[in-house]
Amino acid sequence: MPAILENWGLYTDFYELFMAQGYYFCGKKDDTATFYYFFRTNPYKGGFTVFAGLQDFLEFLNNFTFSNSDIQYLKKQGFKNEFLDYLKNFHFSGNIMSMQEGEIAFANEPVLQVEGTIIECQLIESLLLNILNFESLVATKAFRIKLVAGDRMFTDFGLRRAQGLGALHASRATIIGGASSTSNVLAGKLFDIPVSGTQAHSWIQSFDNELEAFRVYARAHPENAILLVDTYDTLKMGVPNAIKVAKEMESRNEKLKAIRLDSGDLAYLSKRARKMLDTAGLEYVKIIASNQLNEHVIKSLLKDQNAAIDAFGIGTELVTGKSDAALDGVYKLAEVNGQPKMKKSENIEKVTLPCKKQVYRCFDEEGFFYRDTIALANEKENELGLIFHPVYPNRFTYVKNCSKQPLLQLVVKNGKAITAQKTPAEIHQFLLSRSALLPDEHKRFISPHIYKVGISEKLMKARNELVKKLE
Amino acid sequence: MPAILENWGLYTDFYELFMAQGYYFCGKKDDTATFYYFFRTNPYKGGFTVFAGLQDFLEFLNNFTFSNSDIQYLKKQGFKNEFLDYLKNFHFSGNIMSMQEGEIAFANEPVLQVEGTIIECQLIESLLLNILNFESLVATKAFRIKLVAGDRMFTDFGLRRAQGLGALHASRATIIGGASSTSNVLAGKLFDIPVSGTQAHSWIQSFDNELEAFRVYARAHPENAILLVDTYDTLKMGVPNAIKVAKEMESRNEKLKAIRLDSGDLAYLSKRARKMLDTAGLEYVKIIASNQLNEHVIKSLLKDQNAAIDAFGIGTELVTGKSDAALDGVYKLAEVNGQPKMKKSENIEKVTLPCKKQVYRCFDEEGFFYRDTIALANEKENELGLIFHPVYPNRFTYVKNCSKQPLLQLVVKNGKAITAQKTPAEIHQFLLSRSALLPDEHKRFISPHIYKVGISEKLMKARNELVKKLE
Repeated sequence: MPAILENWGLYTDFYELFMAQGYYFCGKKDDTATFYYFFRTNPYKGGFTVFAGLQDFLEFLNNFTFSNSDIQYLKKQGFKNEFLDYLKNFHFSGNIMSMQEGEIAFANEPVLQVEGTIIECQLIESLLLNILNFESLVATKAFRIKLVAGDRMFTDFGLRRAQGLGALHASRATIIGGASSTSNVLAGKLFDIPVSGTQAHSWIQSFDNELEAFRVYARAHPENAILLVDTYDTLKMGVPNAIKVAKEMESRNEKLKAIRLDSGDLAYLSKRARKMLDTAGLEYVKIIASNQLNEHVIKSLLKDQNAAIDAFGIGTELVTGKSDAALDGVYKLAEVNGQPKMKKSENIEKVTLPCKKQVYRCFDEEGFFYRDTIALANEKENELGLIFHPVYPNRFTYVKNCSKQPLLQLVVKNGKAITAQKTPAEIHQFLLSRSALLPDEHKRFISPHIYKVGISEKLMKARNELVKKLE
Repeated sequence: MPAILENWGLYTDFYELFMAQGYYFCGKKDDTATFYYFFRTNPYKGGFTVFAGLQDFLEFLNNFTFSNSDIQYLKKQGFKNEFLDYLKNFHFSGNIMSMQEGEIAFANEPVLQVEGTIIECQLIESLLLNILNFESLVATKAFRIKLVAGDRMFTDFGLRRAQGLGALHASRATIIGGASSTSNVLAGKLFDIPVSGTQAHSWIQSFDNELEAFRVYARAHPENAILLVDTYDTLKMGVPNAIKVAKEMESRNEKLKAIRLDSGDLAYLSKRARKMLDTAGLEYVKIIASNQLNEHVIKSLLKDQNAAIDAFGIGTELVTGKSDAALDGVYKLAEVNGQPKMKKSENIEKVTLPCKKQVYRCFDEEGFFYRDTIALANEKENELGLIFHPVYPNRFTYVKNCSKQPLLQLVVKNGKAITAQKTPAEIHQFLLSRSALLPDEHKRFISPHIYKVGISEKLMKARNELVKKLE
């Protein structure tokens, strides 16, 4: 997505700037640092997360600069001239290693790693978290829906319920996760994704009667006629009127594409409507359903109730990631000037991993994802054997004979993005190829099998030494 | 907020444009319409909603226009030249009546009403819903926190967990609801709201030890020194080191402002830290708490556990409106060319109210909010007597002798906003003045007393007549 504003430097938490100025004046201006991004839990109590937002983040990062008026604003906030001169010329100049967008990632493993001066690493934290957390949240939601919808298409209808301008990132992420199109026209233009839509109840109501509203619509859009049938009475009026119009279209050698149900019991109404359409010889007319859908409702409709639904329009829960609303991704310091750093914590889950790292995906003999290993960046792949639970070191497992794949790749070198741009639909294809390798047990919604992520023996030793030193 | 993009015309659902073109060519180009905005339920299972987002919506509305490249994009989507010529010159030219921003509103009553050509009313729907739904959601969340935090200040720390660029609207709405400042610097600049922040764990970790990190920070920011004490061990290390630094500051005639707790049991740690600070003669040093807070946790900390916390930093749930993630606001047709319109529905709660309307707030003899009455726009205030439950007409009540106040006021006249701009902090003051009139029973979190909203006898009759006609 184009970055909209020319300068996004202020899209940061105040304390990032406050600390940056502190580093600047206390002799740490040129200190180097490594930070890493990870999330602590998979959203929706699920077994995986779809990593998304990388390309958007890199575009914003390229515009993470300060305009003259930004500098004036910061001057009023009390920042010092010498530091403001530094910001005037600020551009991120470090390196970023990252998983590919669309990768299936798991809790507690590094998804992305940033190296640069401590000031630049710090300043970009909020932007990075803001975009990656949200797009990953929505892409994961969309893919969960894709898992139950199968070949049935679904469209993002969420603009009206999205969280303000978050709608833009959301629409992109729904396509990465598997939506076929969006109703959000601006997102369509900015991200080059298909847009679609039908008609609202207001269209029907604005005519003297429903039949006339259907007729005018079908005349105006014969190639894409979808009729909303629940404005007055779905089965007594909406569907019969739609059938009438479909027959009239047939006499003009046109075909009604679909009807849409937007209220009532979607299982019952869809089955009744299907029968009415079929009886009228309109087997080709599809049924689209909308109204407060999510992966669980769709699963129930399709698997438990045999609903006669061919496609879905999904709004609120898709674009806001409800029931979760946020992914708990964090960005933590791992090294300063080559020295390992970590955070102890009152909460044991909040202890971080020191040092530069690499993540290896280990495959089982059939080629499925088996374990992920977090190793020191300079460890050799073929030396990885024992791996340990990151929190409970008395739990361990072996990955010695697995084939392995490093997941973190260089995507920004000396401040320049070096990856090829992909469309959201291409990223979805990559996701599909990865999902095919993830055993089904990790995909189920209820108590998914937990995918094992361990740390290498060397990383555990490095952490233990640091813990001792800190004590 | 400045509208960032110059042209927001594409920030709409595809079907709005599709229908607009339909109206344009089927002879309804100059038809006039009235739509109204309302939400069906108060968020968070609460008893009220804080209406917010109006000023932002009006600013975006002013830029709801189409650039040449937007027109080109729509041409590629198959829209017709004559309609595109119409869009080239599009600017909303109708009237909008609205509640004031910061008003306390209730489910099922018109919060805002739009009059114009049916095309312009339709095109702006998605933008209106997107902004008003989200800011109202977050302002309500923030005000619920304000209700339990009382005089203790709280700050929006949510940028990193906000839903992408939704962070901007969110920060504004938190101030309307009662936050004292935000960490989001860009929101601070755009909306002229106070920004604040302290330090991250990475600051502490980047030094050889915590004490040195505290010392450098206190030297750099003596006027605003807040020390984060939980990086290694809150009570054994963080607080003792903060006390040391506070004493050193005293010797320089400076004062440590606060310590911040960001993990562990906030009730326990705050009380222990308070005792340690007091024993050291540092009664003036405040304690700030953060870490996954919401109104329920804060209530428990303050009312049940006597936590020694003076201020809060709140992120995820504040800016995403978790646990709800979206307000279910809708925008429905009420009239076309002066003819009343309504939607029947399979779901009785989805039936809409026809005709142009006004909402009267009725006060009890002590001046508190008592009932709201939805009346026809042309009804006389002093003729309002019996009012009926909108869904169950056998439930009714009287408002005859109440003093009444019309809540919908003209805010846009012939496309021009005519209201004075207010800062978010000023809007919060208005909210406080209204909240003072709302009985406490409607403010409680668990099973709040339901505030009664009824429809006037004339409106009920108009609806009944229309129902008959539709049958």
